[in-house]
Amino acid sequence: MQMSAPQMGYDRAITVFSPDGRLFQVEYAREAVKRGTTAAGIKAKDGVVLLVDKRITSRLIEAESIEKIFQIDAHIGVATSGLVADARTLVDRARVEAQVNRVSFDEPIGVEVIAKKICDHKQTYTQFGGVRPYGTAVLIAGIDDNKPRLFETDPSGALLEYRATAIGAGRNSFMETFEANYSDDMDIDSAIMLGMDALYNVTEGKLDASTLEVGIITTDTKQFRKFSNEEVENYVNKELEKHKGEEPEESSGEE
Amino acid sequence: MQMSAPQMGYDRAITVFSPDGRLFQVEYAREAVKRGTTAAGIKAKDGVVLLVDKRITSRLIEAESIEKIFQIDAHIGVATSGLVADARTLVDRARVEAQVNRVSFDEPIGVEVIAKKICDHKQTYTQFGGVRPYGTAVLIAGIDDNKPRLFETDPSGALLEYRATAIGAGRNSFMETFEANYSDDMDIDSAIMLGMDALYNVTEGKLDASTLEVGIITTDTKQFRKFSNEEVENYVNKELEKHKGEEPEESSGEE
Amino acid sequence: MQMSAPQMGYDRAITVFSPDGRLFQVEYAREAVKRGTTAAGIKAKDGVVLLVDKRITSRLIEAESIEKIFQIDAHIGVATSGLVADARTLVDRARVEAQVNRVSFDEPIGVEVIAKKICDHKQTYTQFGGVRPYGTAVLIAGIDDNKPRLFETDPSGALLEYRATAIGAGRNSFMETFEANYSDDMDIDSAIMLGMDALYNVTEGKLDASTLEVGIITTDTKQFRKFSNEEVENYVNKELEKHKGEEPEESSGEE
Amino acid sequence: MQMSAPQMGYDRAITVFSPDGRLFQVEYAREAVKRGTTAAGIKAKDGVVLLVDKRITSRLIEAESIEKIFQIDAHIGVATSGLVADARTLVDRARVEAQVNRVSFDEPIGVEVIAKKICDHKQTYTQFGGVRPYGTAVLIAGIDDNKPRLFETDPSGALLEYRATAIGAGRNSFMETFEANYSDDMDIDSAIMLGMDALYNVTEGKLDASTLEVGIITTDTKQFRKFSNEEVENYVNKELEKHKGEEPEESSGEE
Amino acid sequence: MQMSAPQMGYDRAITVFSPDGRLFQVEYAREAVKRGTTAAGIKAKDGVVLLVDKRITSRLIEAESIEKIFQIDAHIGVATSGLVADARTLVDRARVEAQVNRVSFDEPIGVEVIAKKICDHKQTYTQFGGVRPYGTAVLIAGIDDNKPRLFETDPSGALLEYRATAIGAGRNSFMETFEANYSDDMDIDSAIMLGMDALYNVTEGKLDASTLEVGIITTDTKQFRKFSNEEVENYVNKELEKHKGEEPEESSGEE
Amino acid sequence: MQMSAPQMGYDRAITVFSPDGRLFQVEYAREAVKRGTTAAGIKAKDGVVLLVDKRITSRLIEAESIEKIFQIDAHIGVATSGLVADARTLVDRARVEAQVNRVSFDEPIGVEVIAKKICDHKQTYTQFGGVRPYGTAVLIAGIDDNKPRLFETDPSGALLEYRATAIGAGRNSFMETFEANYSDDMDIDSAIMLGMDALYNVTEGKLDASTLEVGIITTDTKQFRKFSNEEVENYVNKELEKHKGEEPEESSGEE
Amino acid sequence: MQMSAPQMGYDRAITVFSPDGRLFQVEYAREAVKRGTTAAGIKAKDGVVLLVDKRITSRLIEAESIEKIFQIDAHIGVATSGLVADARTLVDRARVEAQVNRVSFDEPIGVEVIAKKICDHKQTYTQFGGVRPYGTAVLIAGIDDNKPRLFETDPSGALLEYRATAIGAGRNSFMETFEANYSDDMDIDSAIMLGMDALYNVTEGKLDASTLEVGIITTDTKQFRKFSNEEVENYVNKELEKHKGEEPEESSGEE
Repeated sequence: MQMSAPQMGYDRAITVFSPDGRLFQVEYAREAVKRGTTAAGIKAKDGVVLLVDKRITSRLIEAESIEKIFQIDAHIGVATSGLVADARTLVDRARVEAQVNRVSFDEPIGVEVIAKKICDHKQTYTQFGGVRPYGTAVLIAGIDDNKPRLFETDPSGALLEYRATAIGAGRNSFMETFEANYSDDMDIDSAIMLGMDALYNVTEGKLDASTLEVGIITTDTKQFRKFSNEEVENYVNKELEKHKGEEPEESSGEE
Repeated sequence: MQMSAPQMGYDRAITVFSPDGRLFQVEYAREAVKRGTTAAGIKAKDGVVLLVDKRITSRLIEAESIEKIFQIDAHIGVATSGLVADARTLVDRARVEAQVNRVSFDEPIGVEVIAKKICDHKQTYTQFGGVRPYGTAVLIAGIDDNKPRLFETDPSGALLEYRATAIGAGRNSFMETFEANYSDDMDIDSAIMLGMDALYNVTEGKLDASTLEVGIITTDTKQFRKFSNEEVENYVNKELEKHKGEEPEESSGEE
Repeated sequence: MQMSAPQMGYDRAITVFSPDGRLFQVEYAREAVKRGTTAAGIKAKDGVVLLVDKRITSRLIEAESIEKIFQIDAHIGVATSGLVADARTLVDRARVEAQVNRVSFDEPIGVEVIAKKICDHKQTYTQFGGVRPYGTAVLIAGIDDNKPRLFETDPSGALLEYRATAIGAGRNSFMETFEANYSDDMDIDSAIMLGMDALYNVTEGKLDASTLEVGIITTDTKQFRKFSNEEVENYVNKELEKHKGEEPEESSGEE
Repeated sequence: MQMSAPQMGYDRAITVFSPDGRLFQVEYAREAVKRGTTAAGIKAKDGVVLLVDKRITSRLIEAESIEKIFQIDAHIGVATSGLVADARTLVDRARVEAQVNRVSFDEPIGVEVIAKKICDHKQTYTQFGGVRPYGTAVLIAGIDDNKPRLFETDPSGALLEYRATAIGAGRNSFMETFEANYSDDMDIDSAIMLGMDALYNVTEGKLDASTLEVGIITTDTKQFRKFSNEEVENYVNKELEKHKGEEPEESSGEE
Repeated sequence: MQMSAPQMGYDRAITVFSPDGRLFQVEYAREAVKRGTTAAGIKAKDGVVLLVDKRITSRLIEAESIEKIFQIDAHIGVATSGLVADARTLVDRARVEAQVNRVSFDEPIGVEVIAKKICDHKQTYTQFGGVRPYGTAVLIAGIDDNKPRLFETDPSGALLEYRATAIGAGRNSFMETFEANYSDDMDIDSAIMLGMDALYNVTEGKLDASTLEVGIITTDTKQFRKFSNEEVENYVNKELEKHKGEEPEESSGEE
Repeated sequence: MQMSAPQMGYDRAITVFSPDGRLFQVEYAREAVKRGTTAAGIKAKDGVVLLVDKRITSRLIEAESIEKIFQIDAHIGVATSGLVADARTLVDRARVEAQVNRVSFDEPIGVEVIAKKICDHKQTYTQFGGVRPYGTAVLIAGIDDNKPRLFETDPSGALLEYRATAIGAGRNSFMETFEANYSDDMDIDSAIMLGMDALYNVTEGKLDASTLEVGIITTDTKQFRKFSNEEVENYVNKELEKHKGEEPEESSGEE
Repeated sequence: MQMSAPQMGYDRAITVFSPDGRLFQVEYAREAVKRGTTAAGIKAKDGVVLLVDKRITSRLIEAESIEKIFQIDAHIGVATSGLVADARTLVDRARVEAQVNRVSFDEPIGVEVIAKKICDHKQTYTQFGGVRPYGTAVLIAGIDDNKPRLFETDPSGALLEYRATAIGAGRNSFMETFEANYSDDMDIDSAIMLGMDALYNVTEGKLDASTLEVGIITTDTKQFRKFSNEEVENYVNKELEKHKGEEPEESSGEE
């Protein structure tokens, strides 16, 4: 009986490397993220936007109770994908870190600083036994001085800054749209519309404002805030207007 | 010998993800809930009602000792399904949290706040070794300011707010009734009758007041209380009256 | 080789759910109870009686050293079945809880309160690793205010109040007698005789006063006490008198 | 391949019940006792005697260094069988408990009290992981007020009071003799001779004073003491005298 | 079924030696390094240079967020390869050690001292259970007094000083270039160009300044600093100039 | 496939009894002793002698660095066999115990007391998980009041007093000589010569003073001391003298 | 399928003896030493010399960074073989012990004392779970009073004093040379030349001063110091001179 490396049991604990130096448990935690709702972030010249396509399966659910975008501090917001209870735990932790920074240094925490703190915490759960890694990826958006920032963390505790990125089930489809159409000189409004394009593609034209969650921060206010339902609907309508009369193209996403 | 993922042992500890990013132990804990008594919650414009169909197998059991609806604080009640001893532990914990809030902040705890606290506690039992997840789902009903709230938590620590929902063995049958007949402008009386409808369907017309437990909170009193046996009987009779003369329809539930 | 769920190893630790949400170790602990001596409790209008059929295999054993009925506080007694050393540990714990209550609140502990405390303690041993569940069921009898109470706890920490119940090897036979003949308006004397009937059935008429242990509490004295040998003999003789001349019926118990 | 329950691994840890509710590790510890030297205790009207048949395999061993009977307090003695180092640990513990009682309450500890304390300690080693049960049974003899007491504990922590009992390899043979010939109105001298009878049977007439250890406590002195070699020889000679001229009967023991 | 040593399970924990005295988990951690980005260090007469070829797979990633070269103290820089979150943890630790040294002894920490401290920390993770080794190699460059130093650490905690070395996927190709062309009397400029040669070879001539990270420290300033993008481009252009017109040779690297 | 008890895994931890009540790990530790150097002790009327036949395999080893006989206190010496590092740890512990006794009670520790302390310590390592038993047996020689004492401890923590005994590879051969020739009225000189006889037999006449270690304590001095090389040689020569001209008999030892 | 003892799993933890009383994990740790660089020690009348043949595989490595000989205190030096990071940890520990001795007792630590302390520390890692043994052997050289001392420790914590010894891959070849040519009246210079002979043999005449490390301590200075490169070269040249013109003999080493 020929057995592959996972079958040999290298994937039963985070304290065990596989013969080729992989941590299977961390890779499996990434699978939990790949099965999550799609969250995207896009950085513009003058701000950052976070978008989440909440999958709501029943009209009996209060849509707003599926919260995927969270404010961490006045100037920082995050979007999460993966295990929802893990995400809530990480968000709570980040909020406390932000307040500790204000109390200790009397100034708001840097966006990159908090991103690293989240990642360091996640790394711990990939090196010590008796725990499992976090099954959650987090997009972190904010303004450092006057510069928009957008970070992505994954279950390993790795950290990358992106111009535009997505996590969750629809990541591949979103990344195709972003690779094709993102440009560095976009303003926040174009960034939102780019997100709408990606959503339009991934849903094959079936955009639904009521299941969308959008968060935004711009360099003028430096205040992270979530869009009201009306604001979301506005953008959805604009997007639908654009595609009026055209045959929706086939989504290339594999989710 | 072809083995499926559970057989490969990914389901023996909560600290192990399966290759597709699932936590089998948490999913199995959900099975414990699916085998539990059915509990339902329905949110009306002016309150929330919790109903539990206690399955009593012997006349020698004191029915009231099978307690599935618990008051947490003046303005909050919960219904549970799954492992009964786990449920009691969670209820105790929630009651203490509620009192701690009163002592610390001199005001009643928010319904959402306590729901999150229960979930955070549950999440811990899905990430650290040497324990098992809670085999219990909890419906949490209460009034925040003047707004009725109804939350559902599951063994993973996930939290959702519902207009109407059910947990336990009869969940599917209840949800069918709710999806078909729930409307947002129901008052508390219609909500109770909707619950009776669902109970009528799931029991194939064999409604028995003595095994029903009902808890209610309304925006005017903001006091959670359990129905007396008479009140329950009243509603049961009203329900039976409605169906008088009709052939009870086949239950569509799969339990 | 087809393997059933237990063979797959879901039954080796209390921290592991089986795929259908069961805790096999807790179920196996219940088997330890099913192999224990039979203990019964019967609630009357004016008191509660506990009866244990001690199985004594040698005349060299001092019968009174096989203690299955214990006084916890002035107004509370318990009967146990299952692993005897586990039972003794639980009894000690309950006695301390009762005294703590007297010291802290200057009043006797409630019967339901102590029943819940025993159950909460048992639940802990079903959720944390490195221990096994208690292999003991406990019947708890007492008077709360003027109301007779009778609780049954099992290894899972579940708690039920009964009118009449039994634990141990003879449970099924006892329950048959109780289901057939228990009535709510029994006084304590009829309750004792109902227990004697059940004992008569389960032993196929071979009632032996010297191996019976009986404890009683009534609403007038509110004092739990054990019967003297003479009192036990009295009731045994009364029972034997009743059946005089009749062919003893076949026991329906499966132990 | 058909496997029995032990082969399925239910016997590898004390924290695991078998499907029929047994704790195999505790049962195996009892086997360690069954392989031990035989120790017996007999209760008379006016005292208790403990006897041990020390198996000495070499004349180079100092017989008195094989100590199987220990004084715990002035009024309490014990005899042990099973793992000798475990026994020594238990004896040390019991001696400390006895002194603690004298210091705390200024009176000698009760015989039953110390027996329960030993058992509670043993029970702990059957419920918590990372240890093994004690492989030792203990007979405890003493005087409570003016009443002779004789307790037997086993590795599970179970406790029984006996009129006459034996532990170790020769238990079955001894119990046969006791069942046949023990009577409640024996005085201490007859009790010792009953023990000699049992020893005569189990050794098929080859009684050897130099390998016998005898301890005694009577109601008049209330002082536990060990017999001198001369005293032992006296009784052995009396026993041999009794059987003079007769063909030694076949031992019925299975050891 | 013939099984090799790893298949026998000697590679499942760092607390287990294989029969030939190897620690497989440490060797597997080295594989994690071999799969990492390539980092090189070259020591010149008057300084040390660190170069990293960051592999950037999408234009949407902010290249500077993939940080592989870190300043530890004014006079010390490091380059890492392997698990990025592990690297960040080690870098943080090293920075704290450096500051502790300044506070305790009022002088900068020695380059060799900090290298040993990193290695001692790594060693701990290869001897104690419940953790995994660090999946990261670190190159440490700095000036001790006036002497350039260049250390390499690996997951085992082994420490070596090199004249020129490389870690990560391209190590073999780099080492070939270094073995062939390194000379002890190089100045820092020649050292940088040697690094460029190695990069040119490993990338088969496709040098891209935007994905290169270069850090440098020289004996005159004793300040570690990273090159600006312009400085990197300068050297890349110089390298490309050198090879103009020639057919790029086949890379001999195996990555 | 028929498997014996050890193959069933009952021998993998000291916390697991085998079905017949054995602790395999303790038995295996005894095997470590059986593979050790031979150490013997002989008790005379007026003292005790310890002898060790150190097996020295190379002339490059400093014979005196193979220390097998240790002084614990002025009046106590020990000889060890088995794992040498374990022995050293036990010796250190015993020395500290002896000094603690002097400091606490202002008198030398009893020989039996220290023997029990060593055994109690060893017992601990046979009952608690996460450790292994000591792979060392210890002979303890000393004078209590005016009485020579000789104790033997084994890895289980069992304790026996002997007239003459041996541990290690040559135990069986030594015991044969002792059983045949030991007599209670030997003086210390005859005891030493008895040891020489046993050594002569086990080495088949190849007695070598340089690899012998001898320790002695007598009732007149009550001082344990090791023989000088000259003293050892004296006795060896006396032994060889005795056997002059005779054909050395076949050793009956099985080592 | 016939399985040998290691395959039965007796070699997976240091807390498990094999049926023949061996600790496989300790034996495997010795294999790690056998794969290490060769280190030798030779004791002369007037001092001790340590020699290590560092295997340097690349000219890019700074030879002096492969440190195998360490000064512990003014009068003590050690040479190590096996896992290099383990060795460094042990060296650090020994240095601290030496300083603690100076601070506590105001005198240098004895050579034998520090050797025992290192061994006691190593022993701990062979008896307690959750760690692995040290994969390192250590030669310890020094002067106690005026006496040269040379100790060897192995992973089990065993300690031996040698006249001349070697550890690591070349041990067998070295020991052959030493057995053949060592004499007790050598002075330090002859001892060094004996080491050179052994090195000449093991390298088949390819002696290379640049990869040799030599440490020395003599009774006149009582100062341990390492040879300068020139000193090493001097001895190497003397050795090569000796063998001039002769055919280098075949090495008998098996490494």
